[in-house]
Amino acid sequence: MNDMLSVKEAISSLLDSSEMLVGDETIPLLQAQGRILGENITAGIDVPPADNSAMDGYALRHADWGSEREPLAISQRVTAGSVPLPLERGTTARIFTGAEVPQGADTVVMQEHTAEEKSAVRILKLPDEGANIRRKGQDMATGQRVLAAGHRLRAQDMGLLASLGIAEVTVRRRLRVAILSTGDELVEPGEPAGPGQIFNSNRYTMTGQLASWGFEVIDLGVARDEPQAVRDLMRRAAEQADVVVTSGGVSVGEEDHVKNVVETLGSLDLWRIAIKPGKPFAFGNVCGKPFIGLPGNPVSVFVTLLVIARPYLFACQGASRAQPEATRQVALFSKKASPREDYVRVRCTADGLESYGNQSSGALFSTAWGDGLLRQAAGQEIRAGDLADYFPYALFN
Amino acid sequence: MNDMLSVKEAISSLLDSSEMLVGDETIPLLQAQGRILGENITAGIDVPPADNSAMDGYALRHADWGSEREPLAISQRVTAGSVPLPLERGTTARIFTGAEVPQGADTVVMQEHTAEEKSAVRILKLPDEGANIRRKGQDMATGQRVLAAGHRLRAQDMGLLASLGIAEVTVRRRLRVAILSTGDELVEPGEPAGPGQIFNSNRYTMTGQLASWGFEVIDLGVARDEPQAVRDLMRRAAEQADVVVTSGGVSVGEEDHVKNVVETLGSLDLWRIAIKPGKPFAFGNVCGKPFIGLPGNPVSVFVTLLVIARPYLFACQGASRAQPEATRQVALFSKKASPREDYVRVRCTADGLESYGNQSSGALFSTAWGDGLLRQAAGQEIRAGDLADYFPYALFN
Repeated sequence: MNDMLSVKEAISSLLDSSEMLVGDETIPLLQAQGRILGENITAGIDVPPADNSAMDGYALRHADWGSEREPLAISQRVTAGSVPLPLERGTTARIFTGAEVPQGADTVVMQEHTAEEKSAVRILKLPDEGANIRRKGQDMATGQRVLAAGHRLRAQDMGLLASLGIAEVTVRRRLRVAILSTGDELVEPGEPAGPGQIFNSNRYTMTGQLASWGFEVIDLGVARDEPQAVRDLMRRAAEQADVVVTSGGVSVGEEDHVKNVVETLGSLDLWRIAIKPGKPFAFGNVCGKPFIGLPGNPVSVFVTLLVIARPYLFACQGASRAQPEATRQVALFSKKASPREDYVRVRCTADGLESYGNQSSGALFSTAWGDGLLRQAAGQEIRAGDLADYFPYALFN
Repeated sequence: MNDMLSVKEAISSLLDSSEMLVGDETIPLLQAQGRILGENITAGIDVPPADNSAMDGYALRHADWGSEREPLAISQRVTAGSVPLPLERGTTARIFTGAEVPQGADTVVMQEHTAEEKSAVRILKLPDEGANIRRKGQDMATGQRVLAAGHRLRAQDMGLLASLGIAEVTVRRRLRVAILSTGDELVEPGEPAGPGQIFNSNRYTMTGQLASWGFEVIDLGVARDEPQAVRDLMRRAAEQADVVVTSGGVSVGEEDHVKNVVETLGSLDLWRIAIKPGKPFAFGNVCGKPFIGLPGNPVSVFVTLLVIARPYLFACQGASRAQPEATRQVALFSKKASPREDYVRVRCTADGLESYGNQSSGALFSTAWGDGLLRQAAGQEIRAGDLADYFPYALFN
């Protein structure tokens, strides 16, 4: 298998030839989830903007209680959102969670450790100086770099940007990925399937995957197995999209027209990648747009789009990082070593990973049955009880 | 800490009191990603519908070559999508990947193992009988249960449904979750923040989380710290939503009006959950709709919504399973045991998990900095090098 590219080599090679294919646009923060940040974000303010109370209680100068031991007069009441006066010497301020600590106070005593007496308060248990105060800038300080261009925005990042007062954000325009399938045997779900025909599933799997990664899918449907039909659709794909992805038709067979058409309109390399499922993989360009030719089998499409094509597409989208780290999980089954890196479809139970019986590249049910992929390295034997590399499908979303 | 509920007990208790709050609707398959299946799916056809060829090559009766060793006449050409004739005795059919195997043929020889001679073909290497044929029904057989009601649809499930010819699918109507925050200190990003004020981040974090879980978010904004304002907004929330979620204001302080309002409009229990960050948690109902009161600190909101509220909300949505299994990852840091279950904000590197320095519940940056949560069980000491329970954030999407 020395003539094959390893999965790692294939991904590196694609990344080496990648470049960002999209510009930027500015959108409201609430619409930015899942988008790729187009700018570096630096904190323009301190968060929190001032010392504030972590508790409902009383703000005081620590030394004032230490010396007196007499009830302290309550000189003001500070609620969240209000602006405190400087604290008068020898007094305390009633204060609530989130409220700004008055100038001069250095400690907050939680109310459970106090006893209010008329308009004064007795401290029952004095905490350390500085207690129960959230310091100005303790979360983020002015000038701190918080998120870098290329980062994919998640819920907590939206909260973070909001806490900095940012209402609009510059993100990368969505990458436009055209998909098309080939095959006279394909009919669409909902249509009647005659003898010799099967329902088109790759279109739906690919659309689902690409959409969940935040790309704009340009669905060109199915090209008949006929050179002119493939050529027309391929030209349209290249006109409308940033990247063109096909499933099927890239083998060398006389009914596989994709290869010839792409070679006419641009260029194409057939790669032999040591991956299972999904060996045949093509990369090139159509009318100047990057072209990825996936195999035709449903599981091969799913796995190669996920493992091989996804990092490249995220690079074209201007994302900084798209390959999740493998997690570790106990395998509940044994499996012989194989010369190709094998992505075994597994289900994750509380005890560990179970393997689906039919690991054929034609058995799409293996992917729907389970929760993720166990990665068996080339030459690695898996024994029941081993910790193995595991990629839950959700990690790729 | 015996008076506290464990995280597990809190989740169980919520699940026990949950019921599905939504009906069904039928939508096109291409729109169904991320939705919860509302029906059991049984295969109505065999997939594939007939034996087909896994290769480009020649279909024959295994016994025909075994006995003759003379080139076999090519009696037909079967492309994908066409309907083959029964194979004439002593002949072979030229066949392409995905094409239906002619009746009478039992083996496909890959073209690389043949030599074509005029209109006949010589077999150079005869595979085992049955080779290179994908059997009818090998992926799914008619009548097989493939997906159960309550399953959340992913890309591969869409492909699977398509391969069964299913164009429309019955899913649960999206759960409507109303969110509102309280606090006079809150201003919206984009507005000027005066002294004593901070930007509202919880609204954005919560919206992002709930939307990524497939729920319809009804954003009611911020209620002033004033009973009538809280009451009005709470009533509107209960009218419009299936579940009402708030952040902040459920403590017992005199400026925390949510508790009193909810008790007037329905009922409320304050739970002490042994979780860090995020101890105070309220559950009850407003005007007959389930009510969840999250703490006010940004990280507590994020973690309790993810860990405690999410399984409950998915149950209300009619989803069968919402709690991912923990994966295992090496901790690169040590951490003392604590009486509460601690969700440590970590970053996942190729070597293992790094912990963010400031684990304060006010430091939202800890969540944006990292990739997931290390779960430190109550009483568990973490030593650098230990395998620990790890939940990448993406697992929850």
